[in-house]
Amino acid sequence: MAHHYYCPPENIAADGRTLTLTGDEAAHLVRVMRIKPGQALSCFDGQGTRYECTVTAAGDAAVECAVLTAAPGAAEPSVQVTLYAGYPKGDKLEHIIQKATELGAVRIVPFFSRFCVVTPKKEEQKNARYARIAFEAVKQSARDCIPAVELPLSFAAMLRQLPEYDAALFCYEAQTGGPSLRECVEAAVQKAAAESRAPRIAIITGSEGGFAPEEAQAAAAVSTPIGLGPRILRCETAPLAALTAVMAFTENLE
Amino acid sequence: MAHHYYCPPENIAADGRTLTLTGDEAAHLVRVMRIKPGQALSCFDGQGTRYECTVTAAGDAAVECAVLTAAPGAAEPSVQVTLYAGYPKGDKLEHIIQKATELGAVRIVPFFSRFCVVTPKKEEQKNARYARIAFEAVKQSARDCIPAVELPLSFAAMLRQLPEYDAALFCYEAQTGGPSLRECVEAAVQKAAAESRAPRIAIITGSEGGFAPEEAQAAAAVSTPIGLGPRILRCETAPLAALTAVMAFTENLE
Repeated sequence: MAHHYYCPPENIAADGRTLTLTGDEAAHLVRVMRIKPGQALSCFDGQGTRYECTVTAAGDAAVECAVLTAAPGAAEPSVQVTLYAGYPKGDKLEHIIQKATELGAVRIVPFFSRFCVVTPKKEEQKNARYARIAFEAVKQSARDCIPAVELPLSFAAMLRQLPEYDAALFCYEAQTGGPSLRECVEAAVQKAAAESRAPRIAIITGSEGGFAPEEAQAAAAVSTPIGLGPRILRCETAPLAALTAVMAFTENLE
Repeated sequence: MAHHYYCPPENIAADGRTLTLTGDEAAHLVRVMRIKPGQALSCFDGQGTRYECTVTAAGDAAVECAVLTAAPGAAEPSVQVTLYAGYPKGDKLEHIIQKATELGAVRIVPFFSRFCVVTPKKEEQKNARYARIAFEAVKQSARDCIPAVELPLSFAAMLRQLPEYDAALFCYEAQTGGPSLRECVEAAVQKAAAESRAPRIAIITGSEGGFAPEEAQAAAAVSTPIGLGPRILRCETAPLAALTAVMAFTENLE
């Protein structure tokens, strides 16, 4: 596996010619990888830029690098997908965050809705763990952007964010008819292309209990209800299936 | 969740007018659901047919039903996908089997390849557990076919099966260029349509270690190597992403 190392933007020199790796990344490079000055290193700033570097100094606490090239990372999809996931039970949200990161989501936002079984508890603390899972999945999948994992929203607050997207796909088991996921994605791609920018797509999926009819009705005013076929997908499967389909239809899975 | 109950084909009368539920299904219906004669019941034979019935007699050991209608179940996809999964570590194969069943695979076959870390051990015993996981996922997702989960094959034995498919998609991390998954699937759909039958597609994905170059070379003779994009997918993510993409491109996810 090709390793790439995270350098937070504040550790990149203003002129972009040097950068410094610190913390776990420096420790791993020095103690495990036994990196030496003169060796090549691939770094990323977590915001989409990849830096090809040469190590100039290697200490346990800091690895100094000279930047040879800085360019947009090639592993980021052409579409910006935010995943709004109904807060599930157990460790399912961790699973969703890990997989959604691998599959290219740029933002993951849990939300509470009427049929959620879990209630908010130590969410700031959990959020730090979720962010760590996303970070590790970025490293493992060799992405260049670290998805933002946000604190959970209420259903109403989640709905208020949806008008800002080119397409908001509300995955609803009871949905029949209406436009398909493919049609929504194609329309979003065209709309964004006309404005020379990346399409922004939201995927909304429910927790184990799904959505209440009145929630689905409220959502329909600010999003497009879509079905994901006649097979009933579990709450941890549906968001990843919808995300994969969006990536497939936008040629980001080839 | 709409319940449907499994009736093995041998418990359906030769004239198709009555059927008998036994074992766990009968026990659950009588003890938990407290079913009574006269109530409606939806049953499936695990081979694609759905039976709408009326209960005629309910005992702990057997629930007798009169069949009102028998018809192909509406939850089966139009494409028959076999998933060949490189045998992974831990409980990842169980995860793959559960999710691949939800997503509509008709057959799941693990195989051993050079970089597999696990070695065959009590596979018959494990296979019974895997079959149970698939069965439970069928019930949960309301499918009508129970996917066959087969005993693991060697890499060579797996390759020998590939010529029988309309498309065999060998998911290979190092693949660049060549036809895309979408193009392969479209060609398979056209080929099968010309012969008025469902397309048969194989997806082949590796274990944690991926494939050896000589394995990829041998596979290329009987399959189409395809990439799944620049993000490196874990061995339990890649098969489900490829399966979802096949379902999306064949309109089975809407």
